[in-house]
Amino acid sequence: MKLHEAPSPNARRVHVFLKEKGLDAIPSVPVDIRGGENLTSQFRAKNPFGRVPVLELDDGTLLSESVAICRYLEGLHPQPSLFGTTPLALATIEMWNRRAEINFMLSATGAFRNLTGFFKDREKISAEWGVISLENAADALQRFDAVLVDSEFLAGDRFSIADITMGCALDFAKMVKLQLPFDLPGISRYHQALQARPSFQNS
Amino acid sequence: MKLHEAPSPNARRVHVFLKEKGLDAIPSVPVDIRGGENLTSQFRAKNPFGRVPVLELDDGTLLSESVAICRYLEGLHPQPSLFGTTPLALATIEMWNRRAEINFMLSATGAFRNLTGFFKDREKISAEWGVISLENAADALQRFDAVLVDSEFLAGDRFSIADITMGCALDFAKMVKLQLPFDLPGISRYHQALQARPSFQNS
Repeated sequence: MKLHEAPSPNARRVHVFLKEKGLDAIPSVPVDIRGGENLTSQFRAKNPFGRVPVLELDDGTLLSESVAICRYLEGLHPQPSLFGTTPLALATIEMWNRRAEINFMLSATGAFRNLTGFFKDREKISAEWGVISLENAADALQRFDAVLVDSEFLAGDRFSIADITMGCALDFAKMVKLQLPFDLPGISRYHQALQARPSFQNS
Repeated sequence: MKLHEAPSPNARRVHVFLKEKGLDAIPSVPVDIRGGENLTSQFRAKNPFGRVPVLELDDGTLLSESVAICRYLEGLHPQPSLFGTTPLALATIEMWNRRAEINFMLSATGAFRNLTGFFKDREKISAEWGVISLENAADALQRFDAVLVDSEFLAGDRFSIADITMGCALDFAKMVKLQLPFDLPGISRYHQALQARPSFQNS
């Protein structure tokens, strides 16, 4: 296997996942997204949507989308489970991973891209939407905070893929200095606990 | 079980899923989203993010997010599988479901909400972002079309949850008259084939 990737919150989700599983790193093939390599026809043959990371299996099969890559690795290496095993655990973790991604991560990355114009050489942006996205991300953090004051992790007392999504999104939002209420008590406690995990420290 | 819901593309995904599984409908509890019932503290106790549908189990457990609800039902009723069973099938279907949702469905619903102001009593909107979202949805359709001229379904030759997401999103986008290239050959063939399925016709 090899992982076509560039430094990003999404690639980091795969790295943290591998470390939480106790698996070795997958050989990396760097993709120059700043230079637009991911938008070339050569790369789009690997992923028509031009996104990284892409996992390439030894037989040439290509898997995109960090959560799909992680779910493949979970299938190969079921323990420790980060997606759940019972129908209810699988669904609860899926619910929280989706909330972390759709309600927080996509709002935070949308705020970053539309406010800074980081990818304005290749996508249309709207500063107005950047402001709205930042407000949506802040509102989502309030909702997560209300849960995290009572719960160790998003899906209860067990660490899961949902926490990888949320932790990578929180780290990204803080790194790019989005003005968000990171000091809410539940969020602050939770974020510090994630950052202290070896998987996050070394990814 | 009961399903707290309102007419929407997301609720419809659960209905189509049940029919594809050959399962009975789940008793429905209507939620008046036009009247803002989903934003009340009473409803937010069921889902803090105020979204429908929400599946309530007989013991009171609550599951939000249509894909999480479907994954729970898949766990209870594994056949016919709509999420895949091998690690590679699970991952491939996850990848396509995410592409359908993030690259097309979210862009289409974003275009609708921001261009029409359908929910402007409760969310800030940006017409500028609505225009960009519509362009993003059109671009995504081109990418899907290139795959669907050669492939019967998104994840290959087997119908999956990814096709439910894409079909419900296509039907919604057409119903609200988004100006999108529905007549692309692969998209047109695929959309007609989905609409002919009893599960889509009766949901």
